[in-house]
Amino acid sequence: MTANVRQTVLSQEISQQPDALEQILIAADDAVCEAAARIRAFEPEVVLLAARGSSDNAARYAQYLFGAFHGLVVALATPSLFTLYHRPPQLRRALTIGLSQSGQSPDVVAVIDETRRQGGLALSITNDPRSPLADASGICIALGMAPEHSVAATKSYTGTLLALAMLSTKMDHDPVRGEALQSVPQAVRDALVQRQLLAAGVRAFVGYDRFLVVGRGYNYCTAFEIALKMKETSYVVAEAHSIADLMHGPMAMVDEQLPVILVAPRGAGSDESRLLLLRLQELGAKTIVISDGELLLELADLGVPMSHMPEWMSPLIAIVPGQLLALELAIVRGRDPDHPRGLSKVTRTL
Amino acid sequence: MTANVRQTVLSQEISQQPDALEQILIAADDAVCEAAARIRAFEPEVVLLAARGSSDNAARYAQYLFGAFHGLVVALATPSLFTLYHRPPQLRRALTIGLSQSGQSPDVVAVIDETRRQGGLALSITNDPRSPLADASGICIALGMAPEHSVAATKSYTGTLLALAMLSTKMDHDPVRGEALQSVPQAVRDALVQRQLLAAGVRAFVGYDRFLVVGRGYNYCTAFEIALKMKETSYVVAEAHSIADLMHGPMAMVDEQLPVILVAPRGAGSDESRLLLLRLQELGAKTIVISDGELLLELADLGVPMSHMPEWMSPLIAIVPGQLLALELAIVRGRDPDHPRGLSKVTRTL
Repeated sequence: MTANVRQTVLSQEISQQPDALEQILIAADDAVCEAAARIRAFEPEVVLLAARGSSDNAARYAQYLFGAFHGLVVALATPSLFTLYHRPPQLRRALTIGLSQSGQSPDVVAVIDETRRQGGLALSITNDPRSPLADASGICIALGMAPEHSVAATKSYTGTLLALAMLSTKMDHDPVRGEALQSVPQAVRDALVQRQLLAAGVRAFVGYDRFLVVGRGYNYCTAFEIALKMKETSYVVAEAHSIADLMHGPMAMVDEQLPVILVAPRGAGSDESRLLLLRLQELGAKTIVISDGELLLELADLGVPMSHMPEWMSPLIAIVPGQLLALELAIVRGRDPDHPRGLSKVTRTL
Repeated sequence: MTANVRQTVLSQEISQQPDALEQILIAADDAVCEAAARIRAFEPEVVLLAARGSSDNAARYAQYLFGAFHGLVVALATPSLFTLYHRPPQLRRALTIGLSQSGQSPDVVAVIDETRRQGGLALSITNDPRSPLADASGICIALGMAPEHSVAATKSYTGTLLALAMLSTKMDHDPVRGEALQSVPQAVRDALVQRQLLAAGVRAFVGYDRFLVVGRGYNYCTAFEIALKMKETSYVVAEAHSIADLMHGPMAMVDEQLPVILVAPRGAGSDESRLLLLRLQELGAKTIVISDGELLLELADLGVPMSHMPEWMSPLIAIVPGQLLALELAIVRGRDPDHPRGLSKVTRTL
């Protein structure tokens, strides 16, 4: 890195991701195998994901992953049914997965507790195997990373995605998909190289305090996670939508004052992404595109290339330019990305 | 109404809601009873909601309603698993409910088709009993309203909430809750009286083009629907969050440049709402509060009172000031609320 690349805790943790992911592939393997065996034996009727913040975006990834590969209906838990209204749903045949970097959030723990009380299967994915969440769940996949200090989660997000992806490959004994995951750390390493491109490119976007972030299918989660990073570190209003949801109303907002970030790795939605991009440009919106497709990258005001991946793995890579974008936008806007105002690292909500 | 209240198609449809809801209580009763009987006999393991736009916000209401009163796990469908990836989940034991005013959206129809193909139970709630959605579903609850012409859905939204609420009361044979619903049309009529208060009050907010809208539990849906109305008619960026989600990151955005609309009818989350309001004001944010609680209303920069309702019914009332707010904000910003740019009434997404 050159001297003009600013080091922050956030930038360090973003850079630690390739090593952290390599470590998870090895160290979490046993716990993932055990969890997969328990899930196969249990044969859940439904999967409930309990999470907040970035972990909730990881849960969105699980919706597509477990839906597409395992035919499971995946619901995002509504914790207030447990904590506020004390009327939890029936979970006897449910697999509940609690996702939390710190494992501290009481609302996520409450969903896990209730699942086990009813006889359902409860799994947690957390970075702290001694946390209340790990204690409460029957099975814990620990990420085993060095503690994450930045308020804006980065390596715990990609680590959680990887643990979910590993779990999916073990659930259906798929050695091909399992092997494919081994390429993720290097692809993340390659993605980090884009930092200087992004540092230069975001300067054209410094005057905007509203953004749309659009993704679809597997990368619906990526759109939400990029938007969250931008909100946390740059205090801009960044709103995530799927392409379909955008068409059902929010499209009316789009004009030259509202830049759009489009997450569009090649895959089932490629044609749709191209049509959307052309429409956005007709409306005068400036666009940033994260993709492995040359045509889309050329059309964009700022095209950020990424390595090609099978679509189900692409969220692990596509988020990295988004993290760097949020980081560089914060720096160019004069914000301190390590100390977002009004936030602390561990948030305990009910 | 006085001469300075502007008539638009949108304002007319907002005003038609009390009569339309009265009509639904009578005309939809038979279909609701039949649907409830079929659901009880089927004993679904899980409920899947397929919807887009405002109907997707009605689906959020169903998550809490069917969770709290019937112990059902409710998932919002991810239509792209059906239409883009062709990997639908297993739905043999699922109740799928398709919500669409027009009944035209191919993605919603695809989820219904697949449910029936697999032997699951499929229900639709639509205003057009001759639509593709109604045709595809085994059971249809028709709202039976005069056609909705405004692009921004209002009466079809409250009509869908009412049909869902009626269905819930019939599913557990609860005559007390069923009777309580009879009071909704008058409460909506009472809420419409706030239009002049809102027309005057929004003038203080005309200079902002970014808003947060916050609600929790049953009124999580209300926050999303108010945000959508504002986006569609005023082209402002309005982002909806639950109180808990706000604490996990987006709180960093809040300052004197970001007004917050808080939907907080009295109920299980009242204490939390009050604490949030105080915190928002410490951060300098201007606040609009929709509530039946005097303390909250007094604390707000703009307090919009609503009739007291049991919390599970409150989303039917709390949305009305939000609709009026979006309408008046559009007018004062010089927008034409009847013709949002870039949108058409029927949106056909895949």
